[in-house]
Amino acid sequence: MRQPVSLAHASRLLNHGPTVLVCSRDGRHRNVMAAAWSMPVEFTPPRVAVVIDKSTWTAELVAASGELALCVPGRALADATFAVGSVTGRDGPDKFTRYGLETFPGPALGLPLVEGCGAWLEGRVIVDLPGHAMPGALQGVRQAYDTVFVEVVSALADDRVFRDGRWSFRDDNQDLHTLHHLGAGAFAVAAQTVQASLPKV
Amino acid sequence: MRQPVSLAHASRLLNHGPTVLVCSRDGRHRNVMAAAWSMPVEFTPPRVAVVIDKSTWTAELVAASGELALCVPGRALADATFAVGSVTGRDGPDKFTRYGLETFPGPALGLPLVEGCGAWLEGRVIVDLPGHAMPGALQGVRQAYDTVFVEVVSALADDRVFRDGRWSFRDDNQDLHTLHHLGAGAFAVAAQTVQASLPKV
Repeated sequence: MRQPVSLAHASRLLNHGPTVLVCSRDGRHRNVMAAAWSMPVEFTPPRVAVVIDKSTWTAELVAASGELALCVPGRALADATFAVGSVTGRDGPDKFTRYGLETFPGPALGLPLVEGCGAWLEGRVIVDLPGHAMPGALQGVRQAYDTVFVEVVSALADDRVFRDGRWSFRDDNQDLHTLHHLGAGAFAVAAQTVQASLPKV
Repeated sequence: MRQPVSLAHASRLLNHGPTVLVCSRDGRHRNVMAAAWSMPVEFTPPRVAVVIDKSTWTAELVAASGELALCVPGRALADATFAVGSVTGRDGPDKFTRYGLETFPGPALGLPLVEGCGAWLEGRVIVDLPGHAMPGALQGVRQAYDTVFVEVVSALADDRVFRDGRWSFRDDNQDLHTLHHLGAGAFAVAAQTVQASLPKV
């Protein structure tokens, strides 16, 4: 079931472009939203980028705590993923509760992670980007296009779908096939795979 | 077949996390590589980010020209995508020719675009990121984690698979189902889709 993933393999969890759930909390509240725009940016140490609109409550909670978690939902969570990406939690009831999302605490930071996903990452927002010496500039970098750079500090996966550093999408784990948002609640599902071979030239 | 895509819909071409082919050229050479790490970062104007290792020949050509193209290959190009992502073109023969990739000139910048893909974007590297006033800092921003920010200036798609701002993956267009790199030449293929609905709560 849920197993630690080596940080050396953490980039693999997002390599194929799945839509993720972004979990955040400050001392008083917690929240979850969906994000289609994320990617790894570095293997070692594992670092990822995710676009979080600065008008969102998630952006505020991430700014306050300097931490966030990314959960990789599968087909069984398509409706909930669409829902938490469509509705703000700022003024309403807790979105986890509202949409029936159970959570467990992340192993490194204790962030709320969504049960039933295929993989989970916890990370700390990076303040010092390479090539920068000026604090005044750093603020701008972190806000460029609302792109947040994060250093991954823990990684977990459900070993029914990710094991030994590799995703494995099969008929017997369809609920965990990752979601790739096409727009307006339509998702491509990572159900089929192909193995490429190098052409002889 | 090949049709212009409104720039307002350009982000949709990368929204679901496909692996892309990065095409570049200076005045004398052209090159193509694969990149799994890309994402939209802004809707309007359409802007995307792509990670290009600064040791690659592509990074040099992009730095020299300030331009690049992203092509979205489908299942029929899985082997070629894996190949151009595995071999450098720096000292060898032209990789397009070597792997049998025909090209056509991009409508805005004339960059070499790969025939047989599902979609194509041309863009200019962004030098001025928001929040920055210091030229010394800009250099660093653009190089942060080898992440290149690009403003999209043209978008095209094959209307058999993308039309009216939406991808449509069906049995009759399997060759154009997008590729999502899992690692080591294994790709998830965007063959199946699900339509989520908002839970009543």
